[in-house]
Amino acid sequence: MDFPAQITAALAQLHYGDEPHTLYEPIRYIMALGGKRIRPLLTLLSAHLFTDELSHVVRPALATEVFHNFTLLHDDLMDQAPLRRGQPTVHEKWNPNVAILSGDVMLVRAYELFFDLEPKSLPLILRRFSQTAAEVCEGQQWDMNFETETQVSIAQYLNMIRLKTAVLLGFCLELGARLGGASDEAAEHLRQFGTDIGLAFQLRDDLLDVYGDAATFGKRVGGDIVSDKKTFLLLTAQAQASPAQQAVLARHIGVPTPDANAKVQAVRAVYDELNIRAQTEQLIESYFQDALQHLARVPVADARKAPLHRLALQLMERES
Amino acid sequence: MDFPAQITAALAQLHYGDEPHTLYEPIRYIMALGGKRIRPLLTLLSAHLFTDELSHVVRPALATEVFHNFTLLHDDLMDQAPLRRGQPTVHEKWNPNVAILSGDVMLVRAYELFFDLEPKSLPLILRRFSQTAAEVCEGQQWDMNFETETQVSIAQYLNMIRLKTAVLLGFCLELGARLGGASDEAAEHLRQFGTDIGLAFQLRDDLLDVYGDAATFGKRVGGDIVSDKKTFLLLTAQAQASPAQQAVLARHIGVPTPDANAKVQAVRAVYDELNIRAQTEQLIESYFQDALQHLARVPVADARKAPLHRLALQLMERES
Repeated sequence: MDFPAQITAALAQLHYGDEPHTLYEPIRYIMALGGKRIRPLLTLLSAHLFTDELSHVVRPALATEVFHNFTLLHDDLMDQAPLRRGQPTVHEKWNPNVAILSGDVMLVRAYELFFDLEPKSLPLILRRFSQTAAEVCEGQQWDMNFETETQVSIAQYLNMIRLKTAVLLGFCLELGARLGGASDEAAEHLRQFGTDIGLAFQLRDDLLDVYGDAATFGKRVGGDIVSDKKTFLLLTAQAQASPAQQAVLARHIGVPTPDANAKVQAVRAVYDELNIRAQTEQLIESYFQDALQHLARVPVADARKAPLHRLALQLMERES
Repeated sequence: MDFPAQITAALAQLHYGDEPHTLYEPIRYIMALGGKRIRPLLTLLSAHLFTDELSHVVRPALATEVFHNFTLLHDDLMDQAPLRRGQPTVHEKWNPNVAILSGDVMLVRAYELFFDLEPKSLPLILRRFSQTAAEVCEGQQWDMNFETETQVSIAQYLNMIRLKTAVLLGFCLELGARLGGASDEAAEHLRQFGTDIGLAFQLRDDLLDVYGDAATFGKRVGGDIVSDKKTFLLLTAQAQASPAQQAVLARHIGVPTPDANAKVQAVRAVYDELNIRAQTEQLIESYFQDALQHLARVPVADARKAPLHRLALQLMERES
């Protein structure tokens, strides 16, 4: 079964609404910008652990992708991001009000994609989805709060990325498991598998920002450093820096600079001295191993788990 | 049964979330600003037509109030309104990003208030709620579009207020009816009763803006005229104006003015010459009569309908 092709085809069939065009065209626009469609893929792969009958899983799987794009739409507005996947963001191409309102409708449409489920499984799925949705908003709010806070602990940062990024991946796995007929216990292991993969995935993103290959990363390398973003790398460096290294960081972080390249180089030099790259890779590996342990406890033959295992590995080893 | 007191008490018990405070405090703030709580009241009164057992109706009724306040929060941001019920709006008291994100969580929390319903009634209720929610967004988008459109027909305007205001009142009635055990037909009549009342209610609002008593209206009289809002009154006047009256309107509408009072007086003078007030009252009365016909077709004793009938009358005759 070619799940990615199935997802692409099903997404193309979704009907969000017609009029007013200014409300619905931005939804079609952002959904057409592409992306790896990892979330619905995780849901289908998770369900496929337990059953070959996936027809009822497709629309709920798409709900996770519509929801994810809703968060991108509103986050891009809040972050005043000019581009998304190399194209103008909705608030740039239209205006901020259109971005607010189109996003609101996307959240409604995401909910609607669950309503064909059997009524008896609906309440639990919707409760879990709603809790996840609120947590994703909490993560985004923490992320914005951290921009102006001087003291952010590593624990606070990890909690923020868990909420903002990881819990949705966990939900995607749990959703597929439950719709595939998994036990509560197996669904919970898959949720934790997804959350751990999500944490590792986001840390990998932080790492690529500093140590990625400009040619394959697709974003400007060092962007987090230039924007003073309190990532795991920076917070760890700040926690471990010698007085001399503290001074270097203090000279560059939170200070306007005319020379962004010099800033990136200086901060990266401190990272290198402190082995921040290896430390981050260690934490990624640790989350990945936790994830695999949860997957191992799902009572399904290993051969059946191979595609999900492979995708998790790809997400860890990606260069972009 | 004192429904308003019951609603107030139940609203005070709602728990939206704790941290981050910047996400949840604005929700408690806007919900505490008050308002007439008409939507949950309509739901309870509608359910009470059919049953005295209303315990399962309260939380879904509150969902309509949380949803309504979510729309106010995002609309105030989009309209850049400084005040809501005499207090600073959320985007003013905090900032626009907080308003976006707190609103998003409110929409999620509104959905959650339905999830205790019996699974078998859940899908239809959620479908109807989601359709209504999308329509309310459509109405807001039309309203914003109309600000920059030169040609808006009266039919387009009536469709806009139907979507932006009336369909939610219709949903409140339908929700109560269905949860009270009404037949599909009775639920549909109550939905239409609510929609007609909503249309009349909004037209009454347009009328009060121009002809209300400044002391009781609570908003600045003539605000719609000053802001060139294309209301039923203005669109009707433009459609019926003589060349001389057209010239008066053209001199004032869409033209920046140092003297707002002169503008209000000039436009109102044209309204008076064209009997716009009586025409608007006629249309309100027509919607009200349609509403009553739908209520009459609900197979319940008249005595049982009295409280709902009385509330509808109050909404029509209000001075603020």
